[in-house]
Amino acid sequence: MRNLTLLTDLYELTMGQGYFNEGRQHEIAAFDVFFRPNSLITYSVAAGMEQVADYLEALSFTEEDIAYLRSVGGFSEEFLTYLKGLRFTGDVVSVREGELVFPYEPILTVKAPIIEAQLVETAILTFVNHQTLIASKAAKIVDAAGGGVMEFGLRRAQGADAGIYGARAAMIGGCVGTSNVYAGKLFDVPVSGTMAHSWVMNFESELEAFRAYARSFPEGCLLLVDTYDTLKSGVPHAIQVFKELRAAGHEPKGIRLDSGDLAYLSKEARKMLDAAGFPKTIICASGDLDEHSISSLKEQGAKIDSWGVGTKLITSADLPALGGVYKLAAVFENGREIPKIKLSDTTEKITNPGMKEVYRLYDNATNKAIADLITRADEHIDETKPLEIFHPVETWKRMTLTNFHARNIRTPLIQNGKAVRGHQHVLEHAAYFRAERANFWEEYTRRDMPHIYKVDLSSALYDLKAEMVKRGKQDA
Amino acid sequence: MRNLTLLTDLYELTMGQGYFNEGRQHEIAAFDVFFRPNSLITYSVAAGMEQVADYLEALSFTEEDIAYLRSVGGFSEEFLTYLKGLRFTGDVVSVREGELVFPYEPILTVKAPIIEAQLVETAILTFVNHQTLIASKAAKIVDAAGGGVMEFGLRRAQGADAGIYGARAAMIGGCVGTSNVYAGKLFDVPVSGTMAHSWVMNFESELEAFRAYARSFPEGCLLLVDTYDTLKSGVPHAIQVFKELRAAGHEPKGIRLDSGDLAYLSKEARKMLDAAGFPKTIICASGDLDEHSISSLKEQGAKIDSWGVGTKLITSADLPALGGVYKLAAVFENGREIPKIKLSDTTEKITNPGMKEVYRLYDNATNKAIADLITRADEHIDETKPLEIFHPVETWKRMTLTNFHARNIRTPLIQNGKAVRGHQHVLEHAAYFRAERANFWEEYTRRDMPHIYKVDLSSALYDLKAEMVKRGKQDA
Repeated sequence: MRNLTLLTDLYELTMGQGYFNEGRQHEIAAFDVFFRPNSLITYSVAAGMEQVADYLEALSFTEEDIAYLRSVGGFSEEFLTYLKGLRFTGDVVSVREGELVFPYEPILTVKAPIIEAQLVETAILTFVNHQTLIASKAAKIVDAAGGGVMEFGLRRAQGADAGIYGARAAMIGGCVGTSNVYAGKLFDVPVSGTMAHSWVMNFESELEAFRAYARSFPEGCLLLVDTYDTLKSGVPHAIQVFKELRAAGHEPKGIRLDSGDLAYLSKEARKMLDAAGFPKTIICASGDLDEHSISSLKEQGAKIDSWGVGTKLITSADLPALGGVYKLAAVFENGREIPKIKLSDTTEKITNPGMKEVYRLYDNATNKAIADLITRADEHIDETKPLEIFHPVETWKRMTLTNFHARNIRTPLIQNGKAVRGHQHVLEHAAYFRAERANFWEEYTRRDMPHIYKVDLSSALYDLKAEMVKRGKQDA
Repeated sequence: MRNLTLLTDLYELTMGQGYFNEGRQHEIAAFDVFFRPNSLITYSVAAGMEQVADYLEALSFTEEDIAYLRSVGGFSEEFLTYLKGLRFTGDVVSVREGELVFPYEPILTVKAPIIEAQLVETAILTFVNHQTLIASKAAKIVDAAGGGVMEFGLRRAQGADAGIYGARAAMIGGCVGTSNVYAGKLFDVPVSGTMAHSWVMNFESELEAFRAYARSFPEGCLLLVDTYDTLKSGVPHAIQVFKELRAAGHEPKGIRLDSGDLAYLSKEARKMLDAAGFPKTIICASGDLDEHSISSLKEQGAKIDSWGVGTKLITSADLPALGGVYKLAAVFENGREIPKIKLSDTTEKITNPGMKEVYRLYDNATNKAIADLITRADEHIDETKPLEIFHPVETWKRMTLTNFHARNIRTPLIQNGKAVRGHQHVLEHAAYFRAERANFWEEYTRRDMPHIYKVDLSSALYDLKAEMVKRGKQDA
């Protein structure tokens, strides 16, 4: 594993030097990671927490790192010595990967000595922002396709990690496989792929190219049919080779379309394959797809069983950053919590102060999620009594819950610097996501103009925030 | 360095197995990397070639990789043994980093045994697509700002590599520094950063936070002034601390604005700083900036000296993938070149066949670039004679050049598997880009609606292509 300890913004280290000089390196602070709303994502699928855990456990400056920081200038030898011995000793609480998460919820909280807590801000945001973004995009695409989506984007990914961890996140969001062999090995997930146009161009004829491929891969043979003319050449040649395969005792897998009008071509190809006695073969399609084009193709009856999605998934092309932030929630004096708030003229930008938890409230009759409730950390939700919840800004919007249960969606990830939540297989995270998503009314998960799922504040948290806003304004 | 040999699409390996079974593993093939036009980038700034060279030199499957491929299934033991011994033995020719490049130009060509040439397709595209994209985006932003752009995007990057190599590419495109410490160390480029809002929130008062920072960093002190109220609190407190610093013999550096109306605030802050006797302090601005907002702010007279650009640079938010492709150009039989072409119903998607070179033609009188000319590899451009060039589709658009010189913009990168072009410092690539860009009329590099720079085909290449298109159509 690469040592990513230097994967941080310089200001985390200059602030570290500052706190060190002030003798404040033992002060404990807590920071929340959360997202603000955006118009493109109705819900997010949390991902990247295992990468955060690995990174935090491995955090350690090498001699070379220290020498580099010395060369940057501005750092004292005392501070560099402190950094040399620095390990992450704090606690992290977070949602699990595959959890559905919503704006403003603290999906991850770091509580650690202030210098450590600042140092790790950047990398935590990088990992969680990226993987959550791609898992969320994948979920939308898979939803539009109704399944059968393959992640094909490595060559258009923003560097190697974007391809590798993007493939991982895509699987959590519901993709059934990836073309990325590195990711396949690292995460033990299904890989797929057959041939490129260059293969077909590299033989005397398309038919000969197909035959050669079938010789090497008689089982599960899938042929790319659009190199020359899909319906006049590609599909007929594929059918011819499929017949030869069947005569030799092998059942072919199907064809792939990578250009042209995928709705028209897939419908025509389906007819041709069915008429030739291959109704069980599948049709894969690829080529600049996303949730919108997939939905549109399906609307017109495209006969596509499997979708290879590249660029627009691996880069989340219409929203290439989620914009998660890391905000100070509290500091501690002799173990006593002092809540902190970031004020702003924009109401939505005022942070939720103090140590918090996030509860998902489910209706017992339907087992569907009703709302999420952000509470102060020491609150207890009594499921035996009616619970009134209200909108965090338009507070006159209220509802009372009875016959419900509450689930704290966060659990410890790191305690005293040690990972306490074992890694799970990526496909387990994916299964969790699928199961939990079924607990949401589809009105909340619709791609366009969804009903907005409620994320409310408990009365205690609301009161604390209101009081601090008032006080903050008085101080200004 | 990580072993990225498995960073490939599975189909590169299934095709490899196919060629191996056909006994064609010694056949030599050549592939070109090029981009197609897009509406957002007027010219691209090539980057990522050094990463390509490092990757190719290190290419080697580990025992573990081979065991993994065995577990995937479909590969023969003979082929796996072949892969175990596989190294990249081919040749790569490419433009240098920092070169201005245009659509359809083969900016990199791989000539190698077919299995090797296919295997490396994906990673080469990943590296070149990503770094060229970010360098090009940076160039646009730097152009709008007129300099002084810092890369601040790590936390919003699509994974660690996107942050690290994105920072590198941003420097090639003209950024003067990065917040990314890892990139700073790896590429020896300037890093910068001072404090976050959390620093200010972590002291009893803004004034106390500024004083504490000034105690630690009396030289080059730069203060973030928008935590509470920029003009009523932040700037006055900064001025107070600047006066204290000056009294102690230190000159302050300036202030940073991260929210609010940056035009209004910067103009007011400038007046306040000037009036207080600090006309040499700088004003840095950050917060969701890109070339459009920077240009718009400058238009309104914003007094901003330094721009911290994050999300929209590191993700190239409005165009998060460049879409570079890797297309078969030729195969070789007993050393004899057999040009290959990919046909398409879309004229622009028909590839340029055969081995090629790219010449940039400069006017001797002005030393400005007139056009790029893609030629067959064996052509010689005689600068002593008039040269007629013409549009590759609208062939009646012609011009004759006299008093010009030609420069082949590509040089060998790898020969027989060994890197032959040494790495250069990132800032040398940046300087090269700056110098070569000055050789272009500004009409070609304008951000919006630029005049389109000519990329023509030589007569010989045009004739070859026309003949192959005709023949290809007859065959279809």
